[in-house]
Amino acid sequence: MSRANRPFAISCGDPAGVGPEIICKSWLERNNFAAPPFFVVGNFADFDGRYNIPVTKISEPAEAREAFDKALPVLHIHDGEIATLGEPSLDGAQCALYALEIACGLARSGDAGAVVTAPVSKSQLYKVGFRYPGQTEFVSERCGIARENAVMMLAGPSLRVIPMTTHIPLDSVSGQLTQALIVARTKSAAKAMTRNFGIENPRIAIAGINPHAGENGNLGEEEKLIMQPAIDQLREQGLDITGPLPADTMFHEEARSKYDIALCPYHDQALIPLKTLHFFDGVNMTLGLPIVRTSPDHGTAFDIAGQNIADPRSMIAAIEMAATAVSNREIYDL
Amino acid sequence: MSRANRPFAISCGDPAGVGPEIICKSWLERNNFAAPPFFVVGNFADFDGRYNIPVTKISEPAEAREAFDKALPVLHIHDGEIATLGEPSLDGAQCALYALEIACGLARSGDAGAVVTAPVSKSQLYKVGFRYPGQTEFVSERCGIARENAVMMLAGPSLRVIPMTTHIPLDSVSGQLTQALIVARTKSAAKAMTRNFGIENPRIAIAGINPHAGENGNLGEEEKLIMQPAIDQLREQGLDITGPLPADTMFHEEARSKYDIALCPYHDQALIPLKTLHFFDGVNMTLGLPIVRTSPDHGTAFDIAGQNIADPRSMIAAIEMAATAVSNREIYDL
Repeated sequence: MSRANRPFAISCGDPAGVGPEIICKSWLERNNFAAPPFFVVGNFADFDGRYNIPVTKISEPAEAREAFDKALPVLHIHDGEIATLGEPSLDGAQCALYALEIACGLARSGDAGAVVTAPVSKSQLYKVGFRYPGQTEFVSERCGIARENAVMMLAGPSLRVIPMTTHIPLDSVSGQLTQALIVARTKSAAKAMTRNFGIENPRIAIAGINPHAGENGNLGEEEKLIMQPAIDQLREQGLDITGPLPADTMFHEEARSKYDIALCPYHDQALIPLKTLHFFDGVNMTLGLPIVRTSPDHGTAFDIAGQNIADPRSMIAAIEMAATAVSNREIYDL
Repeated sequence: MSRANRPFAISCGDPAGVGPEIICKSWLERNNFAAPPFFVVGNFADFDGRYNIPVTKISEPAEAREAFDKALPVLHIHDGEIATLGEPSLDGAQCALYALEIACGLARSGDAGAVVTAPVSKSQLYKVGFRYPGQTEFVSERCGIARENAVMMLAGPSLRVIPMTTHIPLDSVSGQLTQALIVARTKSAAKAMTRNFGIENPRIAIAGINPHAGENGNLGEEEKLIMQPAIDQLREQGLDITGPLPADTMFHEEARSKYDIALCPYHDQALIPLKTLHFFDGVNMTLGLPIVRTSPDHGTAFDIAGQNIADPRSMIAAIEMAATAVSNREIYDL
């Protein structure tokens, strides 16, 4: 059976947050979007009778396909207490961590076609021994990929972005933006556009780090000294790059139509336009892995858990994007 | 006659750029938006017979009101050569500079109700002796206001933003973001919301400088050491402030509905969301001046000048915003 036909594993995330709710709402919408069957990895008690949908316990991924039509399949992995919605607990964090570990393992082994991770609370995970900056780094190391080679892409229906540096203070950005980093991130992006989205010669836009992309060196020299040489090198390798572009004028509708993916030197340059445009349907995808891993682009939202008001669009988009990536890899990962 | 009834002065901008074209197109639309009559300050020959609208020479602003219905009034101030569209010249730059100077003077004297400035080319202006970072600083000094007290606000129909630092390299931002700057910019913003827009207790959002607003100091300390004390001080003075907020999640539609204006530590944080949402109808307004000054939020666009494809929406929005500000000042500047 090709990977495209295997069910997707969704890790439950922190069970006191909105993760279980949006997973259940995604199951309710299962006939309205294109994706293979999926199953949750988590504590069955956190789902059973809780979100007004039928759920069924499965003991291995292969059972998910048949069960999926009639109920949300749950691969039960943790006999813990039932989470109190909105009140994170250590037991819930432990469950989230087990679920993540097992879901990744199933994707690695090929029993699951892809892994979609529901939101976790990092501060809660740290209390139960988690030692990673986030799920991205955990997943990449479980795949045998050094964390510096796993690349976070955020995407919505009209924009894909990669922040070349991620969660670091603003005044560290300039020092960390090296020619090697730009080359590595851009090559990763180009390869990912092909294998995940079927775009064979992706058009890549790169934002300058300074206002107006440095205005010929008047507003900063990184564009001339670091970014341009990196871009020259990438072009020599045949990549279709525009930039360094002024970041403020590259994200309106007309500008977005000119590239397939934008790379930005730092977090807010990439995340501001993405979340301005796609706050409710953004997806986080980790590039550079042997498996397909996506995630809704929002947090646990403990403050609204249990009120039945969580919006599942981002989770649904994450499942759909994983499906797109899995089918393209059938073609391009030969 | 109240200032609200006086015609607005529009400086022609670089006559080889799209300024004259968008002014003429705005005149054609004059019955479709709310604003007093306006006149251009520039070289009559740059308008006469050139943009398929009737134009008429006036010798003082008071003549504009009567003339405006039938033709675009031009206050002729420069007997230079006719600009070649798309090919900037020193003579055109000189004309742009004279026009700016005179339009400001007329607003200062009260002969014009407001000044709207069409785009200039700074590099061209520098060749004819201009010594300011931009039109904003020139206008503020002509108004007797120190340039550090003139504040650039960018606004579109769904968002108003102020970058607290402006055209400086990214790695200078942290050093320039002082408590005094935050307090000064925010008080300026609050006052401007009232006198220009009639918002008496404006809701002000302030973005953190670091990703996730520093995540409790884990991703940078400026929020704790500089921003929070400034915000505390502003709140003690009665201002309604939220922040420091994570910049990436404060610009989607629902988030924008919670404040009247957003202040951001640096250029791209403010300009990216503004231009992503309002690339074709953004307005630049200078706050802190005795006169009303607005400008379309785009450049000379020499590359498309003379093709009749320039979009006048930003210019029209600039004229409309000036009209809104002038009428509110009649009430709030007593």
